[in-house]
Amino acid sequence: MAVYTHLGAEDLAQLIACYDVGDLVSAKGIAEGVSNSNWLVETTRGRFILTMYERRIDTAELPFFLGLLDHLSDHACAVPRTIHDREGSAYREVAGKAVALIEYLPGVSPTRPTPAQARAVGAALASVHVAGLSFGQERINRLDASFSWNELEHTDQAALAEIDPSMPDTVEMAQAVAENWPGDLPRSVIHSDLFPDNVLMLGDRVTGMIDFYFACTDAMAYDLAVTHAAWCFDKRGETFEPALGKALVEGYEAVRPLEVRERQELPLLAQGACLRFVASRTEDWLDTPADALVTRKDPMDFVRRWRFYVENGAQVFA
Amino acid sequence: MAVYTHLGAEDLAQLIACYDVGDLVSAKGIAEGVSNSNWLVETTRGRFILTMYERRIDTAELPFFLGLLDHLSDHACAVPRTIHDREGSAYREVAGKAVALIEYLPGVSPTRPTPAQARAVGAALASVHVAGLSFGQERINRLDASFSWNELEHTDQAALAEIDPSMPDTVEMAQAVAENWPGDLPRSVIHSDLFPDNVLMLGDRVTGMIDFYFACTDAMAYDLAVTHAAWCFDKRGETFEPALGKALVEGYEAVRPLEVRERQELPLLAQGACLRFVASRTEDWLDTPADALVTRKDPMDFVRRWRFYVENGAQVFA
Repeated sequence: MAVYTHLGAEDLAQLIACYDVGDLVSAKGIAEGVSNSNWLVETTRGRFILTMYERRIDTAELPFFLGLLDHLSDHACAVPRTIHDREGSAYREVAGKAVALIEYLPGVSPTRPTPAQARAVGAALASVHVAGLSFGQERINRLDASFSWNELEHTDQAALAEIDPSMPDTVEMAQAVAENWPGDLPRSVIHSDLFPDNVLMLGDRVTGMIDFYFACTDAMAYDLAVTHAAWCFDKRGETFEPALGKALVEGYEAVRPLEVRERQELPLLAQGACLRFVASRTEDWLDTPADALVTRKDPMDFVRRWRFYVENGAQVFA
Repeated sequence: MAVYTHLGAEDLAQLIACYDVGDLVSAKGIAEGVSNSNWLVETTRGRFILTMYERRIDTAELPFFLGLLDHLSDHACAVPRTIHDREGSAYREVAGKAVALIEYLPGVSPTRPTPAQARAVGAALASVHVAGLSFGQERINRLDASFSWNELEHTDQAALAEIDPSMPDTVEMAQAVAENWPGDLPRSVIHSDLFPDNVLMLGDRVTGMIDFYFACTDAMAYDLAVTHAAWCFDKRGETFEPALGKALVEGYEAVRPLEVRERQELPLLAQGACLRFVASRTEDWLDTPADALVTRKDPMDFVRRWRFYVENGAQVFA
């Protein structure tokens, strides 16, 4: 959460004038997004999110990310539309950085989701997968099962063990998961990071899925597994909520029924999902000093989830 | 700029229900305020700023700060009104911290003010002073001329000289300013921190003066001097803009003409204003490691302004 760049009122007004959205009335830097700066902008004609791409995001990939929002919006998915400028461009440059103006959507992110909310999210995720089939652009998933194995294997094992004595076990497990990874499941565009933070809701209704900057082309069932791991546990991964898991999968299948082999692979896909977050969090954990002002996300939150799926995956997804 | 506390959607919805403002629709943590967390909250009935008081602010002082907003609003000053809860309270407690719901005002803060904007700010400041005369509550100014002298005198002089070789001179000057400080100028409630950041504008119109958490009872002409130092230079204090200074004072006098002795004291008051920021910034500078993620504000920005007033104050305020 951050605003990394200062944009003056005059620069903002000039930028907004490049779009057919009325005049600038207000702009507040908002504490959302980890790889970009965001402002909630109000004009005489409405509200918008202005995103400035700071790091991690290669601007060559913006046509994929921003085009995806437009494609999904056109197919009635609850995602914000990209506002194009007067010349038709989805993004512009300001102060040497790419910026995009994005539709503002109402809603708040649940922190203690209910089964009815999990059901709605399952259905919304499936709607993205179905609409994604006709998107036409592809992007490889850099954070796949080989990434997790490779990342954990190349980490200093003593440092790993210092996080937790059981951490070195995850390397072996990540290898096994990567070696058994199913390569032939039905694919589409997947969100691949649909944590509750990235979903806006009003009551039980999904009003917006946001932050598609990990979106890529991969197995749809894997995305369901990621969402399962992200929604159905307490934050630390200590308690699984069966009612949430059941509702999430039911909601998904109401829109897109799973094939038999997808369902069969869910326990392994869920383990892979956990290990993806173990791997990236481990990297961040070891890169971030313990006394830094940034909160480090504990890799153990997903080691616990991974263990849960190892022991109970078959039963949970039966 | 920060959001120091996480408030979940469910906690927020429960809090908002304590006010007669409709149902929660959206809430974004915003990057404003240094001693509190702020959210831009939208309900079915409007938009609001939710402020959570984190540090520096003693909740015993909230009746002064929040009552002041109501008093100034009632007297047609451009400040946000405090929204009272269903029981009539101006603030509540959440997670052991005080929170207040504040009116949302449109406008953006200028970064390169024009004379017309400076004139409007002068007039708005004077309107606060005039309305403040009938407020009835008092608060002492802890950051007065004795504070600056005391603060600089008690700082390690070698550390001071390390910031800049000329810094130790400011101690002597702060003593001289404090000893000559006029104690009998007309007083009212003053903002005492009205930097452009704390003013919202639409074009040349002031739509909101915000962040009254340094407000106190002190000489009105001193507040004009603070605002002069805050508005009429470039950020680093290298260039004075005479047109801005002239417009600011003219705008002020259009609402509240200065007394002769107030005008005579302005050069000294402006030096005192600069030294107040030199003192507080020096403290923060020496307390903040150079490699911290927080940006330190350079005390030299106000040493330069102070020097300018020493040399040109009499002429500028003639």
